[in-house]
Amino acid sequence: MKHLEEKTIASRTLFEGRVVRLQVDEVLLPNGNTSTREIIKHPGAVCVMAVTEEGKLILVRQYRKAMDKVTLEIPAGKLNPGEDPAACALRELEEETGLVAEGLDPVIAFYTAPGFTDERIHFFRARGLKRGTFRPDEDEFVERVELTLEECREKIKSGEICDAKTVMAVWLREMEEAGLR
Amino acid sequence: MKHLEEKTIASRTLFEGRVVRLQVDEVLLPNGNTSTREIIKHPGAVCVMAVTEEGKLILVRQYRKAMDKVTLEIPAGKLNPGEDPAACALRELEEETGLVAEGLDPVIAFYTAPGFTDERIHFFRARGLKRGTFRPDEDEFVERVELTLEECREKIKSGEICDAKTVMAVWLREMEEAGLR
Repeated sequence: MKHLEEKTIASRTLFEGRVVRLQVDEVLLPNGNTSTREIIKHPGAVCVMAVTEEGKLILVRQYRKAMDKVTLEIPAGKLNPGEDPAACALRELEEETGLVAEGLDPVIAFYTAPGFTDERIHFFRARGLKRGTFRPDEDEFVERVELTLEECREKIKSGEICDAKTVMAVWLREMEEAGLR
Repeated sequence: MKHLEEKTIASRTLFEGRVVRLQVDEVLLPNGNTSTREIIKHPGAVCVMAVTEEGKLILVRQYRKAMDKVTLEIPAGKLNPGEDPAACALRELEEETGLVAEGLDPVIAFYTAPGFTDERIHFFRARGLKRGTFRPDEDEFVERVELTLEECREKIKSGEICDAKTVMAVWLREMEEAGLR
């Protein structure tokens, strides 16, 4: 695949934040031209699809500043440096929902927006939910919501479920209920 | 949902690029504390799930600088200012694969990474593929690939299919083949 690759000529970090790092690279293209690439470096994240015994999907209602919108998303969070994704997922699930999973099955890991960021989300399916301790971070404001598959479909239509990982969780539930997974 | 919202106290644009704009906002949290939000503003994008008469999914092989990786993704591209998403999707499909769709059905629109960006992808399903003109942008290097569902599953395992929108397309194919959609 070498004929498709771009070579880095120069790389500048223009911003180093708490969450993202902005890097602008000058690259040599396969045809000899040069171009620039705007890249958002991200530590990576996890998300958890957790389903109650009654078949309801666990969601978190929260405000998202980037979109200026209150959303319903499956529990998720950023990886700490060097943190094991499964340990992170268990932690985030309990912090945001007060639920503890007996175990986690890895479903898939995916890049969220390969055109401009290296953010990769590790997607887990929780097994055996038990009551734990709801303890969001001091400056985190979240509410737990439990929805049937039909209610999830309605929330996709109404736009409250509106992000990739959560749509994926709903589709996965759909496949599970149909016996496809 | 007002009790979850954050109020903007100040907003600074730190970088204005060709693709992204970096904005750092100071916000007032529901508990009266202040915090900062690092936000990547993005014009939005489209992607197209196109399936041949033989049931093969149309993919594009390309190099992604953000991940330093050659990937297989469904055809996609950024929206031009004011551009109609369906028109953009038809254009990107033809440019990147040389295929023209008779029509497009909207499947869903989703935010890719709500924690830090407002990027939203409009996901379409193509109808009636015909041969058009393969004409990638001068500095765009892409190859068309057609894969069966089974081959797509293998490419997910091998990591060549590795981004959210393309995994979603494979899952949707799986649901279509099972008669769920």
